Amino acid sequence: IEEKNDAELLLLLEEVHPADIAEIITELDLDEATYIIKLLNSEKTAEALMELEEGVRERILDNLSSKEIAEELEEMDTDDAADIIAELSEERQQSVIAEIQDEEHADNIVELLRFDEDSAGGLMAKELVKVNENWSVTGCMAEMRAQAENVTRVHSIYVVDDKNKLKGRLSLKDLITAPSKANISDVYIPKVDYVNVHTPGDEVARIMQKYDLEAIPVVDEMGRLVGRITVDDIIDFIKDEADRDYQMAAGISEDVEADDSILKHTRARLPWLILALLGGFISVTVLGTFEGAMEQYGALFFFVPLIAAMAGNVGVQSSAIVLQGLANNTLRGSLMNRLVKEVGLSLLNGVVLAVMLTLGGTYLLGFDLIYGVTVGISLISVIVIASLIGTFVPIILDKQGIDPAMATGPFITTSNDIFGILIYFSIAKAILGF
Amino acid sequence: IEEKNDAELLLLLEEVHPADIAEIITELDLDEATYIIKLLNSEKTAEALMELEEGVRERILDNLSSKEIAEELEEMDTDDAADIIAELSEERQQSVIAEIQDEEHADNIVELLRFDEDSAGGLMAKELVKVNENWSVTGCMAEMRAQAENVTRVHSIYVVDDKNKLKGRLSLKDLITAPSKANISDVYIPKVDYVNVHTPGDEVARIMQKYDLEAIPVVDEMGRLVGRITVDDIIDFIKDEADRDYQMAAGISEDVEADDSILKHTRARLPWLILALLGGFISVTVLGTFEGAMEQYGALFFFVPLIAAMAGNVGVQSSAIVLQGLANNTLRGSLMNRLVKEVGLSLLNGVVLAVMLTLGGTYLLGFDLIYGVTVGISLISVIVIASLIGTFVPIILDKQGIDPAMATGPFITTSNDIFGILIYFSIAKAILGF
Repeated sequence: IEEKNDAELLLLLEEVHPADIAEIITELDLDEATYIIKLLNSEKTAEALMELEEGVRERILDNLSSKEIAEELEEMDTDDAADIIAELSEERQQSVIAEIQDEEHADNIVELLRFDEDSAGGLMAKELVKVNENWSVTGCMAEMRAQAENVTRVHSIYVVDDKNKLKGRLSLKDLITAPSKANISDVYIPKVDYVNVHTPGDEVARIMQKYDLEAIPVVDEMGRLVGRITVDDIIDFIKDEADRDYQMAAGISEDVEADDSILKHTRARLPWLILALLGGFISVTVLGTFEGAMEQYGALFFFVPLIAAMAGNVGVQSSAIVLQGLANNTLRGSLMNRLVKEVGLSLLNGVVLAVMLTLGGTYLLGFDLIYGVTVGISLISVIVIASLIGTFVPIILDKQGIDPAMATGPFITTSNDIFGILIYFSIAKAILGF
Repeated sequence: IEEKNDAELLLLLEEVHPADIAEIITELDLDEATYIIKLLNSEKTAEALMELEEGVRERILDNLSSKEIAEELEEMDTDDAADIIAELSEERQQSVIAEIQDEEHADNIVELLRFDEDSAGGLMAKELVKVNENWSVTGCMAEMRAQAENVTRVHSIYVVDDKNKLKGRLSLKDLITAPSKANISDVYIPKVDYVNVHTPGDEVARIMQKYDLEAIPVVDEMGRLVGRITVDDIIDFIKDEADRDYQMAAGISEDVEADDSILKHTRARLPWLILALLGGFISVTVLGTFEGAMEQYGALFFFVPLIAAMAGNVGVQSSAIVLQGLANNTLRGSLMNRLVKEVGLSLLNGVVLAVMLTLGGTYLLGFDLIYGVTVGISLISVIVIASLIGTFVPIILDKQGIDPAMATGPFITTSNDIFGILIYFSIAKAILGF
């Protein structure tokens, strides 16, 4: 089928949903994919392009002329078009925008490109249905119908004044049941949730989730209605955020997928590994200072990876809980309460594990009891300190305005390794005396 | 205000959104919260209850009688009511259900309780608007209006046959513009996405995201329409899943929040720490077998935490990428390709890090060059092996039908610690000969 039969292929794909076409395209090689994209009508291709993964889309767009891309963009909502243009190189962006015939559409896209990708301004679309509060109900019906043609799904009708300031919203039901001579100002609902163009995306997501909204209007600094964000964009945002946090916790600093190039993976992973290596240098140095213990108490060194691993695991657990609490805004109560609780929790865990370690080390592995007791006591201290570091480093970073997600993963593990080893040998030195 | 003034408080809270009431309640102590819940009318309380966090809600429900809970449940959609009942103890469930006056509502809730929480059946609500294909357009309008009263938001009208089998959907626009004598069967759209009651929640989320759906109908084994899932429930599901995966990666096996009790935290965290401790016993034993090297090459032991940490970090990075690929269904290509790529990637990273380690170990930390070279070569091997373990353990688990998220965090870190140390000392032994 891939060879020539245009008509048959078109017929075959006519019934297929754009999201499925996107999946088919991903399976094809580049030439075939470009062929299909060019073959289909632009409305369908535009939607299919949107559904593609970034990497695949990039390669296909490279194969299209600026004019061809512009044609696809004209079929898209402004927010999707802006997202796609943002992926192109600077000069490509300009030539594509110049090729867009519909000047208003192009204007809107350029406006959206100015906003930070993760702010309400970057997430919103310009397409929406709005009416003026001074219009009559009848006059407004006709106007609305015209506007609705450009909007894929009408979630809400927004009411503005003469200066385009957001005043409220209108339910379709109220509009239909209102006497036709009434003015919009008599029937609209003056209470409406909205966000500012600069509201961060996660805040928008939180508001929409909290109030179960399907769309939210976006206003500029002067309260003028400039766009709206729909729930499907927010779902994508939440998913991307979760993926990003997950990767950050694993020590991956760029958004990568399994199928990205080796170079992109290296760029995302290597920096954290270098950080861990530098941390490793410190742990080597710390261990080196306790060289004197090697002759008499060499077995102490056998427990080093165990202590370091426990410190790392406890730190990651504590920081994960705190990070989620910060992200979901569920972290309440004073720092003092948290401190007491975290110490209590880690003492409880620490004592259980220390008893296991002491017994296991002495009777299972056959070390002298003094070793077992030493590592046991050290383990308790290490766990308490590690859980405090894991809990408070994110809280402090957050208070300083730094993304606390940075603090998890390699950073917490590495610093807890070092502190863990230092505490362990200090306690061993105090007990055994070397 | 908290003391007595019922009327004033009611007036004050009248305008407040239930989600905000939930936030206020969370800040109050238990008695005050219960007082507010009892004071407000049940429609508002029902919604506020839904918005509360599980822990807070649990404590408030404990303070209410079965009859009072039943009254709240009558105001809720079936899916929300079922979720709340599921949180109660077995006997409490029965007494609450017995108190629900509306028998149909109670029946529906009981039906929903039977499904797995994370399946489409557990996520769906019974409330929906459906019409029979044999009805006339006029007859159907009246029926629809009656049904719509029970449904918070009408997303779609579903069309069924006499046996309640799902046939398609109907757009409100088509219904309004259709000639009033037409039958539904003439105007409905026979193509509709749907899921089965047993479809897993993440699959439902994927379908709704892919096709940007705001609601999806759910059918039973015989194709009969039994419920629908709306996009706001799916957002909650996606968020919960992401939180769960994140916690799993950090070695937390139960869904806990920062404010949960110490005991609940211990139950969620301790099992993984015990696993890590047992892994630590193995690493102690492995190190013990290389005791002979201590006298002559004691400095080798200083590098143990560095090697272990690198192995752990690389393993976590690789497994995070694979897990996300598995979760988002973007993992394509053969296992052989993945193997070649992962080896290439880790060789590249490994060589860079090994050169840094050799140079740093020799010139910065002042060890003999032979140490630097030994740990450098070991590091490359350890990184390659660790990344292969991190990549393929999740893939293999997934093929076996085991949740691959289990494989990250403590599990990967612990096993990579052990393998890392074993490889390191084996290579050192081969090079230095002890």
